[in-house]
Amino acid sequence: MRQAGRYMAEYRAVRERHDLLEICRTPELAAEVTLQPVRALGVDAAILFSDLLLPLAPLGVPFHFAAGEGPVVDEPVRGAADVARLRRFEPEDELRPALDAIRLLRRELDGKVPLIGFAGAPFTLASYAVEGGRSTHFAATKAFMYSEPAAWHRFAGLLADVVGRYLRAQAEAGAQALQVFDSWVGVLDAADYREFALPHVKALFDRVGGVVPTIHFGTGTAHLLALQREAGGDVIGLDWRGGLDEGWGAAGDGVGIQGNLDPSALLGPRDRLLRRVDDVLARAGGRAGHVFNLGHGILPATPVENVKAVVDHVHARTAR
Amino acid sequence: MRQAGRYMAEYRAVRERHDLLEICRTPELAAEVTLQPVRALGVDAAILFSDLLLPLAPLGVPFHFAAGEGPVVDEPVRGAADVARLRRFEPEDELRPALDAIRLLRRELDGKVPLIGFAGAPFTLASYAVEGGRSTHFAATKAFMYSEPAAWHRFAGLLADVVGRYLRAQAEAGAQALQVFDSWVGVLDAADYREFALPHVKALFDRVGGVVPTIHFGTGTAHLLALQREAGGDVIGLDWRGGLDEGWGAAGDGVGIQGNLDPSALLGPRDRLLRRVDDVLARAGGRAGHVFNLGHGILPATPVENVKAVVDHVHARTAR
Repeated sequence: MRQAGRYMAEYRAVRERHDLLEICRTPELAAEVTLQPVRALGVDAAILFSDLLLPLAPLGVPFHFAAGEGPVVDEPVRGAADVARLRRFEPEDELRPALDAIRLLRRELDGKVPLIGFAGAPFTLASYAVEGGRSTHFAATKAFMYSEPAAWHRFAGLLADVVGRYLRAQAEAGAQALQVFDSWVGVLDAADYREFALPHVKALFDRVGGVVPTIHFGTGTAHLLALQREAGGDVIGLDWRGGLDEGWGAAGDGVGIQGNLDPSALLGPRDRLLRRVDDVLARAGGRAGHVFNLGHGILPATPVENVKAVVDHVHARTAR
Repeated sequence: MRQAGRYMAEYRAVRERHDLLEICRTPELAAEVTLQPVRALGVDAAILFSDLLLPLAPLGVPFHFAAGEGPVVDEPVRGAADVARLRRFEPEDELRPALDAIRLLRRELDGKVPLIGFAGAPFTLASYAVEGGRSTHFAATKAFMYSEPAAWHRFAGLLADVVGRYLRAQAEAGAQALQVFDSWVGVLDAADYREFALPHVKALFDRVGGVVPTIHFGTGTAHLLALQREAGGDVIGLDWRGGLDEGWGAAGDGVGIQGNLDPSALLGPRDRLLRRVDDVLARAGGRAGHVFNLGHGILPATPVENVKAVVDHVHARTAR
């Protein structure tokens, strides 16, 4: 999950002078913000500070961030005519700042911890483009899928192509693992997932698999884990809802599992928090292939000292 | 699920002259709006038009609806001191308009179809009161639960008491079945559900069980179905995400199952829509105890003729 954020004073200090997209598009700033939690928390890996939506703009879907509202897409993609206007692009040109940030970070990290790159999966990126921003019901996205399936598949296929090339470029720039966020795909049932999402996220993994280890994350996907596994990823990222042991069972043997502490647990008292961490570790049972992590993004109200306590606690419990 | 709504022209006509709470608090208007879909769609039951949040105001948590934003609680409940200020109330006095609407509806329906009453479960109602409105992460609610568990249990216990009495009063006024909406409880993992939600929704069902048949509904609860069954309800309402057969398996034998067509399917082409209906019916397999329904509330963009087509199709397929 993203490590930097408003819960950290040093991040807020940067944000006072620079907006989110300015940080993402300035390699030195993106690298600095990426390193803040590595320094403050002692985590085992750095994750590139960036934004899921970056590939939309060069594709022809410009967006901005409205205060308190999250991303707003200027002209949502609502049908075949909109899809026809989109264009393939070269990530090394159009998304160079993120790739330069990776190159800078590898030098700065100097092998101390590995660097994880990431991007959004076709369904999740498309849903932002279609809804025009965040959504609860994803009604416009589903209406698009059902009513214009050919245009949907062109759109999602185009996303799989450009995002796949973007992820390969991240690996070539130095990212040592890649995480694919299909954050909102849990709103689909299994039949819709298989028809409208799986082929494209699978194409994405086919493009990047084998280069570096990959992680495949979604939320609300308890009913989709076996299909997500089928789509790809060396590691399946679980959200916090189900037990890690149950999620691993559903995803199947032979795949790694990342997760799955409820980020809200970080808002509660320390003893309750660490019991929750112990529960996650107990469910993982010391199996090889468990990557301890939160089950979703860290919340702005999170006390930094609680995050540090979790990192230390996991290190103490899993020391060899 | 709620049947009336903005997708119906006759509902929009009423809303042009009356706001949502005015309709809920005027028995004649609530009854009229309740009857609109019964007349237009030929559904097998009427569901009282009302709003989940109504019990909050007499409890001491006033709220209003902001244009385009949904409910806004004037002063969110954030800790023990806020809970101490809340007061028990008598539903027959403070929520009389809804009960009068039920009495009126029973006369108007004249036995043609049964009338379903409803209310929110303690967790879901409390989450609105704590968050101050809708939420994505329910961070304030969870922080409250974890940090002030005693105050949380007093609050949720108070809600179970007043909502339980409200539901009994609905049955006494003539409601022939009752649905309990724990719409947002799926954000809890099983351990949190068991500690913070289950005791109170169970207390609620203990108060109303045996009077009339009860339905227990939530969304995103694939990991909680067995616990929801344990909490109560003659019928478990499934959301659209998982297969109905899998949900029934998780909830266990001996309980009815309601669901679970994706409301978004109503936005797509007719043939695709009816195939989805057939899939739900096939998964139910003709078992006694299946109540066909949507897996969540109907969406504003829904074409009325698609809803009618689903009702007719289900009737044709399940005729004896």
